[in-house]
Order: sequence, then structure tokens, then C-alpha cells
Amino acid sequence: MPGPRPYLMEDMTWEEVRDAATAGLPAVLPIGSTEQHGPHLPLSTDAVIPTEIALAAAQITPMVVAPAIHYGAMSRPLIGGGERFPGTVSLRADTLIATIREALLGLAKSGFAKLCLFNWHYENAAYLWEAADLAVAARGDIRVLVIEHPMPEFSPRELDELFPNGFTGWNFEHASHLETSIMFVLRPELVRRDRIADDQAARAPSWDVVPAPDDFVPRSGVLMKPTDATEEAGKRFLEASIGRLVEAVRTEFGER
Amino acid sequence: MPGPRPYLMEDMTWEEVRDAATAGLPAVLPIGSTEQHGPHLPLSTDAVIPTEIALAAAQITPMVVAPAIHYGAMSRPLIGGGERFPGTVSLRADTLIATIREALLGLAKSGFAKLCLFNWHYENAAYLWEAADLAVAARGDIRVLVIEHPMPEFSPRELDELFPNGFTGWNFEHASHLETSIMFVLRPELVRRDRIADDQAARAPSWDVVPAPDDFVPRSGVLMKPTDATEEAGKRFLEASIGRLVEAVRTEFGER
Amino acid sequence: MPGPRPYLMEDMTWEEVRDAATAGLPAVLPIGSTEQHGPHLPLSTDAVIPTEIALAAAQITPMVVAPAIHYGAMSRPLIGGGERFPGTVSLRADTLIATIREALLGLAKSGFAKLCLFNWHYENAAYLWEAADLAVAARGDIRVLVIEHPMPEFSPRELDELFPNGFTGWNFEHASHLETSIMFVLRPELVRRDRIADDQAARAPSWDVVPAPDDFVPRSGVLMKPTDATEEAGKRFLEASIGRLVEAVRTEFGER
Amino acid sequence: MPGPRPYLMEDMTWEEVRDAATAGLPAVLPIGSTEQHGPHLPLSTDAVIPTEIALAAAQITPMVVAPAIHYGAMSRPLIGGGERFPGTVSLRADTLIATIREALLGLAKSGFAKLCLFNWHYENAAYLWEAADLAVAARGDIRVLVIEHPMPEFSPRELDELFPNGFTGWNFEHASHLETSIMFVLRPELVRRDRIADDQAARAPSWDVVPAPDDFVPRSGVLMKPTDATEEAGKRFLEASIGRLVEAVRTEFGER
Amino acid sequence: MPGPRPYLMEDMTWEEVRDAATAGLPAVLPIGSTEQHGPHLPLSTDAVIPTEIALAAAQITPMVVAPAIHYGAMSRPLIGGGERFPGTVSLRADTLIATIREALLGLAKSGFAKLCLFNWHYENAAYLWEAADLAVAARGDIRVLVIEHPMPEFSPRELDELFPNGFTGWNFEHASHLETSIMFVLRPELVRRDRIADDQAARAPSWDVVPAPDDFVPRSGVLMKPTDATEEAGKRFLEASIGRLVEAVRTEFGER
Amino acid sequence: MPGPRPYLMEDMTWEEVRDAATAGLPAVLPIGSTEQHGPHLPLSTDAVIPTEIALAAAQITPMVVAPAIHYGAMSRPLIGGGERFPGTVSLRADTLIATIREALLGLAKSGFAKLCLFNWHYENAAYLWEAADLAVAARGDIRVLVIEHPMPEFSPRELDELFPNGFTGWNFEHASHLETSIMFVLRPELVRRDRIADDQAARAPSWDVVPAPDDFVPRSGVLMKPTDATEEAGKRFLEASIGRLVEAVRTEFGER
Repeated sequence: MPGPRPYLMEDMTWEEVRDAATAGLPAVLPIGSTEQHGPHLPLSTDAVIPTEIALAAAQITPMVVAPAIHYGAMSRPLIGGGERFPGTVSLRADTLIATIREALLGLAKSGFAKLCLFNWHYENAAYLWEAADLAVAARGDIRVLVIEHPMPEFSPRELDELFPNGFTGWNFEHASHLETSIMFVLRPELVRRDRIADDQAARAPSWDVVPAPDDFVPRSGVLMKPTDATEEAGKRFLEASIGRLVEAVRTEFGER
Repeated sequence: MPGPRPYLMEDMTWEEVRDAATAGLPAVLPIGSTEQHGPHLPLSTDAVIPTEIALAAAQITPMVVAPAIHYGAMSRPLIGGGERFPGTVSLRADTLIATIREALLGLAKSGFAKLCLFNWHYENAAYLWEAADLAVAARGDIRVLVIEHPMPEFSPRELDELFPNGFTGWNFEHASHLETSIMFVLRPELVRRDRIADDQAARAPSWDVVPAPDDFVPRSGVLMKPTDATEEAGKRFLEASIGRLVEAVRTEFGER
Repeated sequence: MPGPRPYLMEDMTWEEVRDAATAGLPAVLPIGSTEQHGPHLPLSTDAVIPTEIALAAAQITPMVVAPAIHYGAMSRPLIGGGERFPGTVSLRADTLIATIREALLGLAKSGFAKLCLFNWHYENAAYLWEAADLAVAARGDIRVLVIEHPMPEFSPRELDELFPNGFTGWNFEHASHLETSIMFVLRPELVRRDRIADDQAARAPSWDVVPAPDDFVPRSGVLMKPTDATEEAGKRFLEASIGRLVEAVRTEFGER
Repeated sequence: MPGPRPYLMEDMTWEEVRDAATAGLPAVLPIGSTEQHGPHLPLSTDAVIPTEIALAAAQITPMVVAPAIHYGAMSRPLIGGGERFPGTVSLRADTLIATIREALLGLAKSGFAKLCLFNWHYENAAYLWEAADLAVAARGDIRVLVIEHPMPEFSPRELDELFPNGFTGWNFEHASHLETSIMFVLRPELVRRDRIADDQAARAPSWDVVPAPDDFVPRSGVLMKPTDATEEAGKRFLEASIGRLVEAVRTEFGER
Repeated sequence: MPGPRPYLMEDMTWEEVRDAATAGLPAVLPIGSTEQHGPHLPLSTDAVIPTEIALAAAQITPMVVAPAIHYGAMSRPLIGGGERFPGTVSLRADTLIATIREALLGLAKSGFAKLCLFNWHYENAAYLWEAADLAVAARGDIRVLVIEHPMPEFSPRELDELFPNGFTGWNFEHASHLETSIMFVLRPELVRRDRIADDQAARAPSWDVVPAPDDFVPRSGVLMKPTDATEEAGKRFLEASIGRLVEAVRTEFGER
Repeated sequence: MPGPRPYLMEDMTWEEVRDAATAGLPAVLPIGSTEQHGPHLPLSTDAVIPTEIALAAAQITPMVVAPAIHYGAMSRPLIGGGERFPGTVSLRADTLIATIREALLGLAKSGFAKLCLFNWHYENAAYLWEAADLAVAARGDIRVLVIEHPMPEFSPRELDELFPNGFTGWNFEHASHLETSIMFVLRPELVRRDRIADDQAARAPSWDVVPAPDDFVPRSGVLMKPTDATEEAGKRFLEASIGRLVEAVRTEFGER
């Protein structure tokens, strides 16, 4: 029988949180979604991944990982498939901003002065800074590290290695190579391997249209090439993202 | 390697959700909290319990269990210890109402017409009906079953059996006999057995005061007698609550 | 020609309010509704009763009684008949919370540091604590006594006496024995005696459904047995509730 | 023992409201305040007056008079004395707009299609049209008559008669000749005759400043000359305002 | 090639704003609209006029003129033609109040302690004081001069001169003599001279109705007599309004 | 004397807007800011540029250009210098979203079914889609083209040409080469040529921190190299952005 997972706030008691806050640890809030991830990945993909990355980062530099935000910003067709897919359940912007603001203030009240928003769901990115700014306006004794995009910059050579069949931008990596590879590592039992298939929208311009034209929406919800996915790539992606979180936390909140 | 947990929406793909909705299954939204539960129970107690009860109920009458609301209404000292405890992280009423409303609408958009709010955190009870009413006002083709209190009525004799040292009301059962017993069953590895100790507020009138007088707040966050807890009682409590959820769903949404 | 009613803020001048606040008196805000109360009671029943109770309490321990909140929370079928009855006019939760918060802050600005929310309409109960908490967050120099349920606990014997034909819970006492008895005392001219008749919903489970099934709604708006009502019972009910308010005020704000 | 006051919704039962709505009667919502009215008038002056005017108008052309809005818009120094006076308790604009919007919708749900906002508190005027517009946007089957200023236009000769010591504008008539005269008629027992004294701000430009300079605020809360007040003038003012309401209702909702 | 227009904040750099604020200059925010102004005046009439008046006033007593609010409060038929005219684009009250509040706070953050709201669009008047009051509540170190009506009081003789064919009230001067005359001076190239024609609503009572009866809406959007307009009158109107702004600023913020 | 500028809604009359809408023209809403742009560019840079681009695009494919949004989202230090600079005046996210939503609905009411949000201020990008989605939810008969980033993709060779001293990303182009070059073309008289100087933040990581560390903020407000700016580059940038807007409008709303 395993015990509580270290640094996972859901498993901690209030006394353990108090002690962690008193010790000056940062608290990180993973921001996810409940969103379609193609026929092969579970709806919680965007909540699972940042939570696990943060827990892994906490092994390197201690930080408390708060319960993930499970309902995120409205899914947009060109980067997440969109709201037409059953199982995608999302919040309006003002509700999401308020939720994150209040979660930050609750963590601050708990004694954490070093706070971090760690996002995985692309559509959330827009709202994190606003929530952080509102929280800081409410109390001046906190600092919020805002990580909107969880992946570091890779060199062209690294991208060639990681995406042997071509890299078309992180925004298309929804339910595709990146996330499938990572879920091979984190939750292999939740990946429906027989359902992995490449797909893409018939059209994906650099602007957007509301309501989305039908040809913006891929039939399966997959935006690119999950058939590229491997466990090995998943490990490299995870390592990169964990490293980025550790670097950001250490840089902004002090070496430990 | 276990597979996806049946009926748990977090583990499902969008196609599985689509099929469940098309089949006419209800969807239940567990409403929890991130709140102190004494020195011996984890902060996620209120999110874990209703999720597990709903999953167990789904084995009896099928229903899809949506991701729990992890951040709930402000903790009140007399029924939850209050907001002074580190680790208690809560939302303002209007944010919580909006969150639940939008989650209901997202589930409705996914095809579910039979929706259920299943609450465990006492302080949330107030806001569920309002959220349901707002969701129904937004679209007329859904029905929402609102279960504010997850326990059925027990006869005095049953209460005597379940609470051999006396029953003082469900509102005092925070981090006490009820929840500790249930967590013995559901998450034994998360119960700090050596930290179980009875406690109570020095004063607990039937009215409330804001800000709370110090004597409304028990030092440990425990409101009554967790030392009464047993795994056997936990099983009975769970059975009763599962039965209540099944009965309500079957009664309101039709026998299956 | 009678003069101003003592302690009724509606009748007072600003100088009298200033003097009362300077003298350290508490201010109590009655929270009512405009809601159907069966064929025999007026729509203002829930505003009249707590105002009169507070005025009577003020004769025992001085307190200023602010203008009642006349529009309350949405009526719920199982405890108030519901919004389908003409004459029921209600506010959304966020509007009601804001109203009470701002009324509290206005009273605080007037110099009152001891504030009391005294509720009669069941559905309001949910929102009082939130409004009080928001007001206290806005200014730290006030304390708010929150009385969600205006009746004290009675012993089984007292209940037997008061409800000779059986007590089924305060939540069913809408437009029934309790309120009819009290209105016999307070506003006998407003009770349509020839229209008093028992009624009840065909079904009243311990959960709720939105929109309400037809069988949750009693045809007349009466939830139980107003035919039990007597003026004598009304006096006892009033005495009990006045006593509870006096006790709460004296306990929390100091003996006078 | 007098019975229910005719047309006063507070005194009516739901069946009587239903019948009035079915008969096509208009419903009028008096909009008042809880605001200082000098040392001689009660805080409820602005709620009492429009309610009584509407009840009198209902004797001429039937209309149902809903419970008055008792908490109005923030008092402005130049027209109401301002928020510094104890006893002035007001709402923010968005709360007031929401309250009126929801009251209108509740009346509409009750079956009234002809609605009227009848205002007495000057500062409210701003927000009535917006609330009416929002209510009409929510349901298209109602019409809302908005009476921001309750007094009709008088000819110069009439003004000379009514204000023998000079008329300086309705905006200065707060707690002065107009309101004192009317309260002599409506609530003589609430007028502190020995406290009537003229006053005015040291300075009252046609613009405003926030926060108000001290010289914008009259010491007593009186803005002009209540010593001019007579019961006879009160009757004429009342007659004029009743006539205006009757004319507006008949013109817009059809002759009866 | 002309350079930046003096005192126009849109043309200034941040350093110039910093210097102006440091020098203690007031900042004025023109509040306009995008609203039909008959067949002969442009939609931006209400934004152009107060901006130009403020710039002219700044030549007399220095003040920085912030970018005008271009989207104002909902147009009302009796004073602005109403929302049925294409090209009228407006904000809800709460959005407008928030916008003005935040613009004031942004100017305050820029170092301006003397702020002025200078309004031209009649329907905005209602909301300026509330926005100013909210801004002052947020930070106590500013003062806000609120000029709801931009025209000074004229003597009857002056009115006779300015309105040789009769003056019926400023509220009817929408797209009529006043505004057409002023636009002859400020933007003669934008006045469609061949389209100037008098018009008026068939009915214009001193109350309002929502939704507006058709006979409240003049067919052309003109409320009175633009054929009276002359460039000379325009100059006098401008002079009067500039003088009023200068007087208010000097009176409240100190002679310069 | 020049006449009204073609397609500029501010200069149009309501009849001209009506005719344009009836003819099926799109309406484009430029989204800008009032924000520091270094010591050499005016505060209105972000409002001027998209308005002028849209007017130029309208010469190629007709579209009506609505009044620009002059107050945009909060400036972020790493991409706009931040809120510490005097002259930067911004709105909170929910106010900006509401403003854009209501402007879209006002344009829709005016008869435009093809709407376009055309953004220049980087920080606004986040909120446009949400505003569009809310507007479409309110009325189903419109389509909204959302152009968050006004520049097309350039090939590496084009970037080399345009940025001879190196391209470091559009996010650093605030008050730098791009905007200075364009303002040389559009508003040469507003560029303070003697104040052009390169600058940059001491540190600019790919994450953000709130409140911003001092080393995130460049002293002058310039983020990169305005000394690279030339009128020729300005023309090429404009041509590219105009082309992108024309292409998007033609693609999504049909060739003209």
C-alpha cells in the first residue's frame, strides 16, 4: 500500500501544508482542461500532464503541487478541436480568471508567497497573467510565476530529432505526437493504442473564425500525427518540460 | 496494468462520452473542496469521497462521473474549520455558482440531458440549486437532480448503531467519525492513523459570527470524534450514500 | 396619532441613527421575501415577521432594525412553493448577496460595528454568510451575527405541544402552522381565515430537481397544516424566536 | 381592524395577484431609498411617498403596487446630502440595476405585461431605463413605463404659488418644502416639527466633484427650505404627482 | 506637416505625459458615443465635440486630454433616437461604468491627481458619478470633477438669441441646432449640408417607455431643428462650453 | 477641405452605414491601446495603425471600419513595457471582453453579418476569441473573423531583408523597428526622431512574473531596435499587413 504522494497537496494534511509554506516552498497550480483528445487519449490529458510534470520537478526542487484546475478555457477548433466534441466541458473566461485568482489567494492565505501557474491547455494561456495580476493587486506580498507554455525552446536540430516527420508548431500538437508520447509514459493504460490515427483540419489558417467553419474541425479531434508517438519521445518531452519548470522556479524564486 | 476506470469521465475518450450520452445515461458532477480535514485526513477528502460513491453507484445504475469540483465554497468554522487553516483553498460564491453552471452546460452540450449534482462539502450546498436553476434557464432540455446532502435519513436505532458514542448532527461530522471511517475504506494509505484525535470547538452555537470568534475554531480542525472511526462503519456509510444516489437517480431519471 | 415606532430605522432620522450607533447599539437587518404564502397569507409574510420579531427583541435589548430586504432568494418548490406562483418575485443569488453586502457596509458606514442578519425566508439562508464574509473582507472593524434559522431548538416535548398533529420539519412550515399562527398575532387583518386549508406536495423527497416535477408543487402553495394554527401558538412561536434573537445578540455582542 | 390595503401587493395573496394580472392590470414598482432627510423627516421618506402615490393612483385607474425598493442608488451630496450621513444606506449601480431588472422579470412571470417603474429618489433616475431595457431584452412580451421624475411640469404661475419664497429646482427639494409638505399629509406622526429648519450647502455648482468638497454638504442634510412646508401644499404636490402617474399609465397602457 | 496637437494625449509620448502629471496638470476624459446624428452629421459627433472643447480649454488653462470614450451608453429614443438606427453602437451600463472607472485609475496611476469627466452624450450622464465614486473608493488620492452636462446655464435672453425659433430643452438638441452649429465650426467637411432637415418624434412625453413606441422615434434621427444652425451660433455654443469647462477646472482644481 | 474618409464609420452617417450593411459589406473593429511606445512614438500608436491598415484594405475590398478600441488590455512588461509607464491606460480583461462583445452586437444590430476583429496590441489577443464567442452565442446570425496577430508569416529570407540587424520575434517589436517604420509612413509628424534609441529589458525569459522584476522593464519603454526603422520598411510592413487582412476577409466572407 503506497502512501501519500510527496508534494501532492491533495494527499497532504493541513499541517503538512503549513510546514511546507513555513519552510518557504513554492506552490504550483497546474492548469488543465476536460477536453477531447482524439479517439485514443482521455479527457483528463491536460490535467494529468502538468500535475505529473510538477510532481517530478518537485523531486528536483521542492514545491507543493496544488489540485489541478480541471475545467479550463473554451476549446478552440484550430488548437483543441473545439466545443462541438462531446466530453469537452469548459468555462467562460471570466469564470476561469476568477477561479485562478481565488485559488492563488487561497494558497497565499495558506502561507505560500512564491506561487506558480503551470499551464498545459493552450487556450488557458490567455487568462493566467490577468488572474495573477488581480491576485497581486489584492495582496502585495506574493509573487506569481506564470508559465503559459510548458515546453522550452528547442533548437532546429532537436526539433528534427523529436519530430522526425516534421514539426508544424506546438499549437497543432493537440492529441498528437507530443501528448500521445507523454501519455505513453504517464498513463499507458489510458491510451487506446488501436485508436491512434493521424488527422488534421481540412483548413487551418493563421486567423480564426467564430463560429468555426466545418473545415476547421478535424473529424477525429486529432490535429496532427499521433502515429509518430513513442515512449522514448515522451520521456524526452517530459524531461524538457520538467527542466523548464525547475529552471523557472529556481531562477525566479531562488536557488535551493 | 489496470485500464480506464469504468464511468470515470476523466479516463474516457470523447467517443465514449458521446456513446454514453447517446445511450441516455445520466452524468453526475461530484462537488468537493480542498479543505483541512484535521491532522489525519488529506485535503482532497471532500473530492475523493463523492467521486468514489458515484463510481460505485454507476456499477449499480450506469452514469458517467464527471471530474469533481476540487475548489469549493468558503469553509465555515462551525462546519468545516474555516479559512484560517493552511491548505484550505476556496472559491467565492459567485465563482462557484458560475463554475457549476458552466460545467452543467458543458455536459448538456455533450449530449447529457439527465444531470446530477452530488455534493459532499457542506458549505457548497447553498449554491447548487442556484447553479442548476441558471443552467436550466439557459437551456430548457435538461433536468438537474440536486443532492445537497449525501447521506440518507437514518432511524434513531441506526444512528445509535453507527454512532455508539452519540450522534450530534451531520454538520459536526467534518474530519470526524463519518469521513475518517469512509477514508479507511477508500484511501487507507492517506489516513494518518497516529494523528487521529478527537477535538471540538469550545463553543458551537446554532448561529454564526463573521469573523469567527476564536472559540468557534477547533485547534486541530477536527469537529467531533474521529476516534470512533472504523472500516466497518465506513462501509456502512458508503453503502448508505451509494444507495441514496442510486435511489435518487432511478426515481428521477427512470428505472434502468 | 402614534409616533415613530421605537428602533425602526425606517421611522428614524439620521441624527437618531447617529446617536444609536454612537451608543454602541447593534443594527439588525431582517431578510425576507415577496413570496406566495398560500391562499390565506399575504406575500409580505417573510418580511413582516422578522421585522416584528426584531422590534420586539429591541424592547428587551436595544438594537436598531433596518429596512427589511423585501425581495429574497428564488423560491424553491419543496420549501416555498416555487417560482411558478404569481406574486413570488425573487432575486438571483449574486444580486441578493451584493444587496446584503452593501446594506451591511452602509450600516457600518453609519457607525454600527455590531451587525446582525436575521433571516426568515428559508431560501435566503444560503447566502447570508457569504454576504457577511464579503462585508468583513471590505472593512475589518465590524462583526456580523448571522442567524439563518430564526427558530430555536425545541425539545421533543415542546414540539409535541406546539405541533399536536405532528411536526415534520421546519422546512415544511411554509404558509402552514408556524407562519399562520404568527400572522394571527402580528397581522390578523391580513389572514384570510376562510381560505385556510391544508395541502402538501404529492412528493417531497430529500433531494431536489430542477425544473421541479409537477408533483413537487402543492396546488395551493401550502406545504403542511395551517389549520393547526392558533393565536396562542403564534405567541409561543414569537416568544421563542424573540428569545433566540435576544440571546444571540447578548451572547455575541455583550450583555446589556 | 382594517383589512388589506387595496392594490398593495405586500398585503395580497398569490391568488389575488394572479387575478389582477389576468385582468390585465399594470404593476408599478416604487423605487425609493433609505436616506437621510434632514433632522425632521424619516429615512424611509423616499420609499413611503411613491408607494402612497401609487396606491392613490390605483384608486383612479387600477394597478398593483409592488413592494418598494428600499435601498436605492448612492446619495449624492448636491441632491441628497450624500453618503456621509449616518442612516443613508445605498446600493452600487450594478446591484440596483440587477435588482430592478429581476423584480421586473418576477412581475412579468407573475403575469403582468404592463409594468411601471415609479421613482422618487433622484439618484435612482439614472438606472431605471437600463434595468427596463435589460428586462425587455430578456423577454419580449412586456412593456415598461419608466417615470424617472415623479412631478409634472408646472407653469411659472403654479410654481410661484407652490413655492412662494422661490423655486430653485427640484434637485434642491430634498428634505425641503416638497417632501416635508407631503409627509405632513402622509405621515404627520413621523415629521419632527420642532426640528424643521432651513439649510443649504455653502456651494452648489452645476457640476459635481468626487469626493465631495465639504462645502457641498449642508450640515443638517436639508438642501433648501422645509420651513415653507404646509399640509395644503403637500396635498397639491400629491395631487399633481398622482395625476401624472395616472396620465402616464392611461396614455401608455390604454384608457380604463 | 503639423506636429502633435498640444495637450492631446493620443499624440503625446509617455515622457510628456509623465512631465504633465508631475507638473500637476489635470487630465480630462471626454465621454462620447458612436450614435446616429441624423442624415447630416457623422456618427462620431459626440466624441469629436468634447475632445475639441477640452483641447480648446487646455489652451486657456492647461490640461491633458485623454482619448475619448467612443462607445457610450445605450441611445434612448427620446433624447438620441435610439438603438434602432444602424450605426448606433453602445455599451451596457455596467461595461461603461467599468470602462470609465478603469480609465480614471489608469490616469491616476500615470500621476494625475486632478481628473475630469467631460461628457457630451446625454445618456452617459447617469453613469459618470458612479464610475468616479468607484475610482475614488479604489484610491483615495484623486479628485474627480464630473461634468455631466457640457453647456452652462443661459439667461432667457441668451436663449432667445441662440434659439431664435424657440428653445425646447437641451434634451431635444440631438442632431439639431446645437450640434449642427458646432460641427459647422469643428468639422465642416463632415456635415452633409444637403441633408439637413428638421424632424421630430410624433410624441415626446416627459416619461419613457421600453421598448419605445414607434411614435417616440423620429424617422430621420433628428429631434428638433438643425435648419436653425449657423457657424456663428456654433462659435457661441463652443465658447460657452469651453468657458464652462475652464471655470469648473479652475474652481475645483485651483487657479492657474 | 477634404470630405469624409471613405469607409471610416466615425465619419459616416447612419444612412451610409445602413446602406453599407444592406450591401453586405463586412465591418472591421480595430483593437488598439493607449500605451507607452518609447520616447519617440505616441500613445495612440496601437489604435492608429490597425485603423489605417483597415482603411487601406477597404480600398481593395470594401469594408466599414468601426471606431477603434482605444483602451486595451493591461500592458505586460515583456511585450509592452508594462503598466508602470505614465500614459499607459488599460482595461481589465472582463471589461475589455464585454466592450468588444457589445461593440460586435451593436454592429450586428446595425445590419452587419460579417464582422472582423483586427488587433494590433499584443496583450489584447487573448480576449478577442472569447468576445467573439460570446457575441455569436447571443445571436446566431453573425460570423466573426478574429485576427489576433496582424502580420503574416514571412519567409526567413524576407525576415532577413526586413530585419537586417536580426529578427528576435514579433513580441519584441513593441516601439521598435516595426512600429517606428510604420509610423514614419502613417504619422511622420508624430515620431520624435531625435528621441529614437535602442533599448531592451535586462532580462526577458520565456515565462512571466507578476509583479514584474525590475529587470523585465526596459528603462525607455523600447523593447528592441527602433534605430533600424525606415520609411521603406514601414511601407513593406503595411503592405504585408493590409494584404493579410484583405486575404482573410476575402477567404472567409467571399471574394468581391
